[in-house]
Amino acid sequence: MSIQLNPIGILDLLSQLEVDSLKKSSTSKLYRLFRNCSLAVLNVGSHTDSSFEIYEKYKSFDINLLCRERGIKIELHNPPETAFVDGQIIKGIHEHLFSVIRDILFIQSKYENNHINLTDSSHITHVVFDMLRNANVLPINTEPNMIVCWGGHSIADNEYRYTKEVGYQLGLRGLNICTGCGPGAMKGPMKGATIGHAKQRISENRYLGLTEPSIIAAEPPNPIVNELAILPDIEKRLEAFVRISHGIIIFPGGAGTAEELLYLLGILLHPENEQQSLPVILTGPQSSKAYFDEITLFVEKTLGQDALKKFTVIIDNPAAVASYLKENMTKVREYRKEKGDAYHFNWTLKIEPEFQLPFAPTHDNMSSLNLHLSQPPQQLAANLRRAFSGIVAGNVKDEGIQEIKRNGAFELQGDINLMKYMDTLLKAFVEQGRMKLPGSVYTPCYKIKV
Amino acid sequence: MSIQLNPIGILDLLSQLEVDSLKKSSTSKLYRLFRNCSLAVLNVGSHTDSSFEIYEKYKSFDINLLCRERGIKIELHNPPETAFVDGQIIKGIHEHLFSVIRDILFIQSKYENNHINLTDSSHITHVVFDMLRNANVLPINTEPNMIVCWGGHSIADNEYRYTKEVGYQLGLRGLNICTGCGPGAMKGPMKGATIGHAKQRISENRYLGLTEPSIIAAEPPNPIVNELAILPDIEKRLEAFVRISHGIIIFPGGAGTAEELLYLLGILLHPENEQQSLPVILTGPQSSKAYFDEITLFVEKTLGQDALKKFTVIIDNPAAVASYLKENMTKVREYRKEKGDAYHFNWTLKIEPEFQLPFAPTHDNMSSLNLHLSQPPQQLAANLRRAFSGIVAGNVKDEGIQEIKRNGAFELQGDINLMKYMDTLLKAFVEQGRMKLPGSVYTPCYKIKV
Amino acid sequence: MSIQLNPIGILDLLSQLEVDSLKKSSTSKLYRLFRNCSLAVLNVGSHTDSSFEIYEKYKSFDINLLCRERGIKIELHNPPETAFVDGQIIKGIHEHLFSVIRDILFIQSKYENNHINLTDSSHITHVVFDMLRNANVLPINTEPNMIVCWGGHSIADNEYRYTKEVGYQLGLRGLNICTGCGPGAMKGPMKGATIGHAKQRISENRYLGLTEPSIIAAEPPNPIVNELAILPDIEKRLEAFVRISHGIIIFPGGAGTAEELLYLLGILLHPENEQQSLPVILTGPQSSKAYFDEITLFVEKTLGQDALKKFTVIIDNPAAVASYLKENMTKVREYRKEKGDAYHFNWTLKIEPEFQLPFAPTHDNMSSLNLHLSQPPQQLAANLRRAFSGIVAGNVKDEGIQEIKRNGAFELQGDINLMKYMDTLLKAFVEQGRMKLPGSVYTPCYKIKV
Amino acid sequence: MSIQLNPIGILDLLSQLEVDSLKKSSTSKLYRLFRNCSLAVLNVGSHTDSSFEIYEKYKSFDINLLCRERGIKIELHNPPETAFVDGQIIKGIHEHLFSVIRDILFIQSKYENNHINLTDSSHITHVVFDMLRNANVLPINTEPNMIVCWGGHSIADNEYRYTKEVGYQLGLRGLNICTGCGPGAMKGPMKGATIGHAKQRISENRYLGLTEPSIIAAEPPNPIVNELAILPDIEKRLEAFVRISHGIIIFPGGAGTAEELLYLLGILLHPENEQQSLPVILTGPQSSKAYFDEITLFVEKTLGQDALKKFTVIIDNPAAVASYLKENMTKVREYRKEKGDAYHFNWTLKIEPEFQLPFAPTHDNMSSLNLHLSQPPQQLAANLRRAFSGIVAGNVKDEGIQEIKRNGAFELQGDINLMKYMDTLLKAFVEQGRMKLPGSVYTPCYKIKV
Repeated sequence: MSIQLNPIGILDLLSQLEVDSLKKSSTSKLYRLFRNCSLAVLNVGSHTDSSFEIYEKYKSFDINLLCRERGIKIELHNPPETAFVDGQIIKGIHEHLFSVIRDILFIQSKYENNHINLTDSSHITHVVFDMLRNANVLPINTEPNMIVCWGGHSIADNEYRYTKEVGYQLGLRGLNICTGCGPGAMKGPMKGATIGHAKQRISENRYLGLTEPSIIAAEPPNPIVNELAILPDIEKRLEAFVRISHGIIIFPGGAGTAEELLYLLGILLHPENEQQSLPVILTGPQSSKAYFDEITLFVEKTLGQDALKKFTVIIDNPAAVASYLKENMTKVREYRKEKGDAYHFNWTLKIEPEFQLPFAPTHDNMSSLNLHLSQPPQQLAANLRRAFSGIVAGNVKDEGIQEIKRNGAFELQGDINLMKYMDTLLKAFVEQGRMKLPGSVYTPCYKIKV
Repeated sequence: MSIQLNPIGILDLLSQLEVDSLKKSSTSKLYRLFRNCSLAVLNVGSHTDSSFEIYEKYKSFDINLLCRERGIKIELHNPPETAFVDGQIIKGIHEHLFSVIRDILFIQSKYENNHINLTDSSHITHVVFDMLRNANVLPINTEPNMIVCWGGHSIADNEYRYTKEVGYQLGLRGLNICTGCGPGAMKGPMKGATIGHAKQRISENRYLGLTEPSIIAAEPPNPIVNELAILPDIEKRLEAFVRISHGIIIFPGGAGTAEELLYLLGILLHPENEQQSLPVILTGPQSSKAYFDEITLFVEKTLGQDALKKFTVIIDNPAAVASYLKENMTKVREYRKEKGDAYHFNWTLKIEPEFQLPFAPTHDNMSSLNLHLSQPPQQLAANLRRAFSGIVAGNVKDEGIQEIKRNGAFELQGDINLMKYMDTLLKAFVEQGRMKLPGSVYTPCYKIKV
Repeated sequence: MSIQLNPIGILDLLSQLEVDSLKKSSTSKLYRLFRNCSLAVLNVGSHTDSSFEIYEKYKSFDINLLCRERGIKIELHNPPETAFVDGQIIKGIHEHLFSVIRDILFIQSKYENNHINLTDSSHITHVVFDMLRNANVLPINTEPNMIVCWGGHSIADNEYRYTKEVGYQLGLRGLNICTGCGPGAMKGPMKGATIGHAKQRISENRYLGLTEPSIIAAEPPNPIVNELAILPDIEKRLEAFVRISHGIIIFPGGAGTAEELLYLLGILLHPENEQQSLPVILTGPQSSKAYFDEITLFVEKTLGQDALKKFTVIIDNPAAVASYLKENMTKVREYRKEKGDAYHFNWTLKIEPEFQLPFAPTHDNMSSLNLHLSQPPQQLAANLRRAFSGIVAGNVKDEGIQEIKRNGAFELQGDINLMKYMDTLLKAFVEQGRMKLPGSVYTPCYKIKV
Repeated sequence: MSIQLNPIGILDLLSQLEVDSLKKSSTSKLYRLFRNCSLAVLNVGSHTDSSFEIYEKYKSFDINLLCRERGIKIELHNPPETAFVDGQIIKGIHEHLFSVIRDILFIQSKYENNHINLTDSSHITHVVFDMLRNANVLPINTEPNMIVCWGGHSIADNEYRYTKEVGYQLGLRGLNICTGCGPGAMKGPMKGATIGHAKQRISENRYLGLTEPSIIAAEPPNPIVNELAILPDIEKRLEAFVRISHGIIIFPGGAGTAEELLYLLGILLHPENEQQSLPVILTGPQSSKAYFDEITLFVEKTLGQDALKKFTVIIDNPAAVASYLKENMTKVREYRKEKGDAYHFNWTLKIEPEFQLPFAPTHDNMSSLNLHLSQPPQQLAANLRRAFSGIVAGNVKDEGIQEIKRNGAFELQGDINLMKYMDTLLKAFVEQGRMKLPGSVYTPCYKIKV
């Protein structure tokens, strides 16, 4: 089965040098990246979150670029069938393919061998900005209205319905949605907002997905996502989330959601961010109350009372969540105006290099993480963030899974109390089925050494 | 509670004569109509289908027009709260108010004391066309893609989910939706299509609602409806449905749905319509198979074998329904092209005056309907249509309900076999809860005299 | 030579009743009107202003409507060649044909045998509004910015260049242009504004032409006109001009321009219009100073000192003209806002029936005009307006020309001084070549009886 | 006088690194470039073509960037007044300022210290493409319709009117205009096309200006230019011209126009370009016939008979010029389609490095040019092109003028016959006033050594 897709978006305007760099013949690393990310976005609706399984299943998949008078055509060989309706590719998925090409080319053509210093904090922020700008996801002349929704890709049915209802209430209030673009809590809010926006006749609705090459196969962007950006790594992706957000909702989730919460708290606890206006809400249906109690306790025990002031918990009240955020948009607006900061990108948010520099989840790096309580809360948050980041990698990222296969589970060690808190939390995630999609038996990729 | 709405749409451009005609002081019939229809569209989300209850509950509701430099403002006193989100009217409902004003003014200013002869078939068709054109719901330069969905406002949960799934599959194929704009089978397809359209990046999506003043309170347009036209009576509304449709789906429903099916078959059985290309599908989930068997039997017994050829039954297969219709769009297109007929309005469809002239559902008119088998099928269809139309009026239209209160149930009489078929069908509707919204005990508004 | 034009605009959506009413077979008055107006707009660029000559020259011209699946096609037989570029009709002219059909149909379908009383002042105003609304020339949500430019169709070269320069300066300030849509002072400002708007990146530029069936052949709309409305008679056209204008410029011109000035002054002198905010400027190049001195003197002698306060004369300074008007837009805006009056239509401007009711320029009506100084200025203005209106008819309108051919020149009589002022003014018009296009010898269509 | 301009276009989205690079404090070369180009676009309407005079006159001019919540504001100190209307900057000029920032930043951020090899032919072409793409001047989904118009900035009045008329005829045929964006033959076609486009209701009209930092002050873009790209040097600018063009018109002009013609012929004479479809017309009013005879003779004598086949001369017939080009668009389309080449960028046109590598017009380089007839025509064309390029620099480019001031006139030497042809041609340019704007006495910047 072979299919040609017409050029749209970026493909209208590729130069011959650029096309060459993506050609199969080049046997380059770039081509593998391009092919795998393309496969991932085509494979939406898949019922596994194992990148490995997906790559195995579609070994015969192939992708080429062809020059034509109106631009570059994409040729697909043996693509996943779920991307098509009556033989036609779903337009949303068609667009995601272009986003893949755009972001992969951009990084390569602009930042390879360049004058940018990727260990300098302001240069890293510039790259994040530059990629988002190039992806055309920094709107101008709009008021603050982007709500980042975090939460698990594997959640219970009633939790999923709850995320839809929250999305609906956000949509009715003209708020937009950004997520990490997989299933579950990353899809529900967008579906709900679509109905809310339709009733409010909002046609400029934004469903922004921020992803990264190593997770895109496990959590492929659902086709409602109408703006997609692929950041090079989880650290730049997290920075993108917090700099474009005007409010953040955290739904129930597993290790990834814990990583996001710790990243966020670590930043908000920085003294220079004390005045920042960024509303954060943890919410879920009645049945998830216990979950949030546990999270709250973990935060309090590890990062202290101050960290609790950085967010609000609202249980089982979608309209209240949306109203609270809508009201806070005024404050966000005033704060940005006062500081002369952009609405579309929060330049004034201070992010330390420890949250920006990529963390490679190797066995060595994981076991040597400083997980003791005797360090400043924001530093501890940074290290805890890395720990959970490693667990996500071991769960669903291809490289991480390979690593675990080769060398067994990661080992985490540190303060005995801290280790107990972590253990409790992670066990709860496992029991509640938040680590992997249902249907698979979860084998932990980590060991807590107490 | 008093609220002012900014002018948008038609209200930007009203003349002083027109504003005067809608003023309360005028104590005119026009003002009552305007007020009641406005109340109906504001009252969406209500849990009753009794116009009477609604009008009683909102006795203190009032509406005024105010002249301002950018157009006419609407002032609402004591409107239903469900129309508002955090004190702001939902935009979709805001627009529906303008549709009310537009259509009520149009009828009055153009067709009162005019040269149009409303007993002449071609003049009636002109009025239907003219109202739809004025409502801006006849798109140009678009291919055939409008699917009319009929079905009950009171249906079971799994039937409702099924209508959403069908809508989703239609939306994925770029098809648009037109319904009678109440809840149930009239809302589900639009909700589903909204998600399908979002995935296909279709922003010109059309969710067309066709209603009439006497039913709008019982079946108010849901705010997803983004094009609303209020036709003066059920006969012009039915003509509008069939002339703008490129395909028709009939979901499970009660007396209203039966009325629509009989109207449609009566027209399609006309010899001049034999070549017409208009795909018709009856569909529902597995659980509704018995319902469609019953309907099919009734049609066969009353209108004969030929009538069965005019539609296809598809059980429990939303994708097949949508694919079938999508494929047939090509045939519809070719037929219209061959005949030089418009895509947006089916001029060549022959509709006899017996389907166009308003039928007043009085006790006399109902009891003197010719319900015998010894008449041409299309004539029998016309009379059966009237019978079911009367029952709908007695169930949910204000005037019909008053009539029943005053004079007891309608009496229907005719051929003994035919009466049995009707009795069986109607009893099934009652048992399946298709006559009224759940929560109310249904007292039949008719008696079958066998 | 026979050409078919694709349906666009109104032609997409005609009903069969409407098409029938414009068919040639109908031999109706409506068809003649339709054909002649169509010929007029096709004949732009013609070098005569004699309707008679034009109709003679294109005797073999014919126009038909054909039904097709995407709307109604126009078929032209032997159209004037100047409307075409390489065999393709100029798009602007194509659109003007639709405006012709739209306005002719509108009048007929809505106001024939209708409830509107065309001798009632508020009903006449309603009709003017309704026609402009139907022609889609009443924009919403725009600030006051429409400048009406009056002036002769036959003016000197340097005067023409001056009107272009004024248009350019208006365009640079974001102001739009409305004229009577012939050549000369009616075309220059639009051409200039086109360049000004281009430099200011204004794409919503409006070049509104208001015309009437009896003058459209002599002064056909130039294709820059992108909004065209054809009012039924000069009185409704003049009312349209003043109600949609936010400022008025009067360039040098002949009898038609004098008619316009007298109409305007007659209205502005009404006590109820004393507070009205409507800037009026008379302007021209240095060489036309004498002309304006003469006009000013005539106004002073006939309507008195007060009339002089209603306008400002600016000689040879296009930027000053445009700046003055731009500044005054704020006052116009404030006035409308204070009165709750619309920006797009000046409802509060008082216009007496003597300025609204059609004046038929017959010999009897002309000779019995009350042209004495012993009447209130606004009444005198009304009568003088009629006198000049008659002269315009005798000069360029088909019916007027026929009338003169049959019965000789119109006779005007009245107060001896007044007659002298008129004689002086008219003679100046003749000498300056302002009565007819150059190339023709002007034979006066009037006699002043002193 | 100090003025702040709101962010639009690129300025909405600058990163802090980028803003810093344009700050005055940086005393960088980049800031000087930015300041001088900004001054140039603000100084449109100036009556000198001497960059030096302009920079002298506006010594006190300054420009700064300020961060604000909706983007970056521009602050201007003592800008030229002609850029403003009633204190407001003309929108077209406002946009040009952004183009300046965009192109200057782009070059610096993307190609400084980068992996692009600027002596490699395909890399140079990639840079030209990349800059045009970044400037958003490569439209997609449009048919071939871009006509490049070359010709002098200093031409006679009747020649200027002729260029306007040609532009008008091009506009009527839906063709777009690209020029080098100064006055004279670079402005006329755009002005004319604006009127033609208005009559054809073409709102997507394109008036593309391609310039370079060293000439922008002498030939500033007129505000009708609605797409502006600033290429780094004349060679990349010429490559941009020929790769985006679908047809080329050459009006009368001086040394710059001769440079353009020689560049074009040199390329078209390359054997690989033999099949290329690119219509070239030399045209002017009757009075310029002698001029074109002279040019034609020079081409014949230097490049030979074959070169004459590459263009067509049409005298005094604007409609014929436009019709010829319009017809040829079909051939251009077919050729591109056949080759699978883009409509928006002519990738298949072979351009040798000798036409791509920058030529620095120093005295040494000029005097050592190989100007002998005993070389292949395309090589001779390349060298002649360089000779004329040097003369343009000496006439109007700041660096060239300084060079001449320091070291006297350039010396050109070579084949004696060739030298005579050049001398004749250049003397004619001088006599006809084509070298410099009128009002200045022209002192030749070159000596021909025979």
